[in-house]
Amino acid sequence: MTESVQTGSNVSIALLHYPVYDKNRQVVATAVTNLDLHDIARSAKTFGLFRYYVVTPVPEQRALAERIGRHWLEGWGSTYNPKRKAALELMRVVPGLDDVLHDLEDVYGRPAKIVMTGAQGRTGNISCADLVGLLRDFDQPYLLVFGTGWGLTEEAFARADLVLEPIKGPGDYNHLSVRSAAAIILDRLLGR
Amino acid sequence: MTESVQTGSNVSIALLHYPVYDKNRQVVATAVTNLDLHDIARSAKTFGLFRYYVVTPVPEQRALAERIGRHWLEGWGSTYNPKRKAALELMRVVPGLDDVLHDLEDVYGRPAKIVMTGAQGRTGNISCADLVGLLRDFDQPYLLVFGTGWGLTEEAFARADLVLEPIKGPGDYNHLSVRSAAAIILDRLLGR
Repeated sequence: MTESVQTGSNVSIALLHYPVYDKNRQVVATAVTNLDLHDIARSAKTFGLFRYYVVTPVPEQRALAERIGRHWLEGWGSTYNPKRKAALELMRVVPGLDDVLHDLEDVYGRPAKIVMTGAQGRTGNISCADLVGLLRDFDQPYLLVFGTGWGLTEEAFARADLVLEPIKGPGDYNHLSVRSAAAIILDRLLGR
Repeated sequence: MTESVQTGSNVSIALLHYPVYDKNRQVVATAVTNLDLHDIARSAKTFGLFRYYVVTPVPEQRALAERIGRHWLEGWGSTYNPKRKAALELMRVVPGLDDVLHDLEDVYGRPAKIVMTGAQGRTGNISCADLVGLLRDFDQPYLLVFGTGWGLTEEAFARADLVLEPIKGPGDYNHLSVRSAAAIILDRLLGR
């Protein structure tokens, strides 16, 4: 298999709706957003990822995400827009981060390295360029974790094997949507 | 003024809701999407752009975009989330591409170069790397144009001074959302 076929095949992405902060730094579970499902699935498909995990402990929210997925995978939407079907086929809806890790270990036979992302710089951040080098070990699965709301909690960050540098532009403003941040990070890591 | 302050200051972005294709390659005006306003404004602010133009010939759609903008600029939203205010301050809502070009010529005293974007490769595409070089001429304004729906029409492309290469991942799938494509292109052109 050529490298270009394998690129991204050891990388998955998880969007956590819990535990994340709200505006007042309270720990909350955020609501599933329709365009988070579509946009991140399409980015994941574009950059050759293995799976896209939508993570929420709230059963009703999982049911909503599943219903949106089924609409494009099985229903009228699957024939109306096959490109969305191809993207949403990567999506798995699970209650927690442990479920993601168990799933990946089942597939790859070894634990995934957890790469947390966020808008704040942290000591020991890894750069996208350095992570690109690590991703070339195709036997090692990697999970890129993104938070909704005002970002992943400290408790979530405590589980990281690696923390990725924040995306910055020329100025101080770095309040990208999670959809935009995920797209940029996937491009930096896996775009050619 | 240092280069880092100026980066992006000669670049604006326009999101065209007309003339674009629908799924069946009919020319249509698409509806304004709330998250297109927010996500692209936040990306534009992050990467130091001058302005973000939302373009639609439909008066009711312009009124909707203006109302969303005002909510975050003047209303309750401006104090609830000042980061959104800072981003949406870049937004201008206008009927057509000519209005965008007139506005830019008023500001810079010379016509903007029109850079069209799309998911299809075209003869004579410019690469992001080559465009980065051109953008260093800070006296020359540039307008990055994105289409909604199934993309900008041939009539729209005919007005391009430059056409940017499409964003590709390792495979053949390149159906990013316009929000994701805009984020990636701004990062490739202006991210450090």
